[in-house]
Amino acid sequence: MSDGAEPPNVDELTPPNRTLMGPGPSDVDPRVLRAMSTPLVGHLDPSFIDVMNDVQELLRYTFRTDNKWTIPVSGTGSAAMEAAIGNLVEPGDTMLVPTNGYFGGRMADMAQRAGGDIVEVHAPWGEPLDPTDVAAAFDEHDIDVFGFIHAETSTGVVQPAVPELTSIAHESDALVIADTVTSIGGVELRVDEWDIDVAYAGPQKCLSCPPGASPLTLNDAAMEKVLNRAEDARSWYLDLSLLEGYWGEERAYHHTAPITNVYALREALRLVAEEGIEERWARHRRVAGALKAGFQAMGLEMNASDEYWLPSLNAVRVPDGVDDGAVIDYLLEAYDLEIASGLGDLEGEIWRIGCMGHSANPKNVAYVLSALGDALDRQGADIDSEAAIPAMHDALGDD
Amino acid sequence: MSDGAEPPNVDELTPPNRTLMGPGPSDVDPRVLRAMSTPLVGHLDPSFIDVMNDVQELLRYTFRTDNKWTIPVSGTGSAAMEAAIGNLVEPGDTMLVPTNGYFGGRMADMAQRAGGDIVEVHAPWGEPLDPTDVAAAFDEHDIDVFGFIHAETSTGVVQPAVPELTSIAHESDALVIADTVTSIGGVELRVDEWDIDVAYAGPQKCLSCPPGASPLTLNDAAMEKVLNRAEDARSWYLDLSLLEGYWGEERAYHHTAPITNVYALREALRLVAEEGIEERWARHRRVAGALKAGFQAMGLEMNASDEYWLPSLNAVRVPDGVDDGAVIDYLLEAYDLEIASGLGDLEGEIWRIGCMGHSANPKNVAYVLSALGDALDRQGADIDSEAAIPAMHDALGDD
Repeated sequence: MSDGAEPPNVDELTPPNRTLMGPGPSDVDPRVLRAMSTPLVGHLDPSFIDVMNDVQELLRYTFRTDNKWTIPVSGTGSAAMEAAIGNLVEPGDTMLVPTNGYFGGRMADMAQRAGGDIVEVHAPWGEPLDPTDVAAAFDEHDIDVFGFIHAETSTGVVQPAVPELTSIAHESDALVIADTVTSIGGVELRVDEWDIDVAYAGPQKCLSCPPGASPLTLNDAAMEKVLNRAEDARSWYLDLSLLEGYWGEERAYHHTAPITNVYALREALRLVAEEGIEERWARHRRVAGALKAGFQAMGLEMNASDEYWLPSLNAVRVPDGVDDGAVIDYLLEAYDLEIASGLGDLEGEIWRIGCMGHSANPKNVAYVLSALGDALDRQGADIDSEAAIPAMHDALGDD
Repeated sequence: MSDGAEPPNVDELTPPNRTLMGPGPSDVDPRVLRAMSTPLVGHLDPSFIDVMNDVQELLRYTFRTDNKWTIPVSGTGSAAMEAAIGNLVEPGDTMLVPTNGYFGGRMADMAQRAGGDIVEVHAPWGEPLDPTDVAAAFDEHDIDVFGFIHAETSTGVVQPAVPELTSIAHESDALVIADTVTSIGGVELRVDEWDIDVAYAGPQKCLSCPPGASPLTLNDAAMEKVLNRAEDARSWYLDLSLLEGYWGEERAYHHTAPITNVYALREALRLVAEEGIEERWARHRRVAGALKAGFQAMGLEMNASDEYWLPSLNAVRVPDGVDDGAVIDYLLEAYDLEIASGLGDLEGEIWRIGCMGHSANPKNVAYVLSALGDALDRQGADIDSEAAIPAMHDALGDD
């Protein structure tokens, strides 16, 4: 660069006004956006300590846990994921990971970078783990950590029977890490009652908070392992034994927290508390149920069977002869509406249509159904687009 | 937690209205706060690709570099720091780190977690590195990576003669990592002209942007080493060879970027471009120079000598008999004004008073000088508080 290089001429920020019904981020409540525009205090300000306490208390409520070790990690959901795995897995440990979706593969990658070995428990993409298979893996291998995906964003599948899985792991003295990125605040999740040792999540799904500070909770057994590691965690930034100084009683400096993201998360969690966590789960079931009813009335098929359908992420099968990418592009261009394609084994076979947090409302559902009906009609798909909206109203119990 | 636990009752967010003159965060321009309240698009939205391009171009301008590999890392400054060190240092590599401040110690810690060995180059806290000592370390050891702190936030010292340091390292084929957290956008920094291979920074200092997305730049030599590592970087989240897919030409999904923080950084960098980078450095020198003149007229002593005084972070010696913590608490309570104490070897000996970005203006300087004068008068310190403001006006060239 020559020293006289002219400054780039970059215009005012004017992004399009999207409706976000993909796998996240979801639409953000204006109250949360307003909290983000609050002038900052310092990360060691006494008033920020109060904010930290509020966020921790609200996170415990949302995770349904009493865990002292409940914090927002300073990064997006994958940072919270790596904080969980990178601290729990020590070199030489064996971690059991699932293969039934995109995020089990990421778990395996992170565990190996932490110095761990991997054992896999298999299920097809689009189906949950079978507890029998998990038990068989524990019979065959000496497993230290078991990771599973509670709500698989790549397949639209919720893992049922969580207490059965944690019980199998605990019989072998393994610790359990749950990926709750797409369930927290939208789908029934009970960390303490289900005996989950560690759960991590993202804020930009059913919490409808911009990404940047990500929920993590560890129980005493998990934290004991973290604090008694033979060698340091391999990331300084994500070392939970160091973060203990900042988020624990001492409130000592570790790194500069993303103050504004913590403000936003506080406001998003206040909205959860105001609605009530059980009521919020019920809203997701009801509104996403109406979305599903609309899809099915139109003649579309859900990829996941009803018993493990994930309300927050609807995997809809692409009808024969339809170009999935062209539909996605048309919805974005003609409707400012974001939905997403399939990943991995399901690439080209499904659309992923979210129904999360602030986006989980009847107006957005009606918009998706009518826009998708239009897009499919234009492609000459063999569907009945006009049946969708009445089916949605029926499901919602509207008059 | 009992399942019927009541939601916590957390009030509306109403933090105090601080004036931030500590080591960061600094006061944020209202335009940046407004950008943060912009509704989100998805992290793979075509319009967000444009935003990514804008931010990369603006970062290149601000770093004074043509490096293709110029991105915001999804985390606070320490995440960018660990991305630099954790990717450049391979197991078995030797990294040369400084001991003349807090952040050299953090470099050493991160390099060791990456599997590297450490060699130290010594200088007292409050002084810069001597190139002779750096050359001696290179003569004695086989060094792969050399890290130094361009602007040491813990001591208020700027490292002069950077091209001399990089030249010594390059003669031994080592790569150079510069910590520019407290210099970027406020103090002369020329990544290309000075032959710095990798520089990382924080957004919440002289860029006056809320923390959460942090500048990083690598030249081709550094990126070639990253892309040819014998084993994967130890963090998946911060693996630059994976981030290459998202921030490079492919724009493939790696993790959900902190969209709102990227919006904010874009606006903060637009303000840099509008002002002009050289003009911005000059403003920091001028305004912080007036702050320093005020301190000195009052009878206070600067910890750093004039030749390596860091305008963005003023280390002011605590006068004999004055309780440094009581002054800090009084300023916060009586003036809503944040300054900070010393760290490490300088704990109890200095105050750290920032003059950064949006905070680097005559109004804030006058406020600090009069508030600090009041605090010191109350402690019965032997100073002339009334001399500060006239000296400030003189230094600014006011009539």
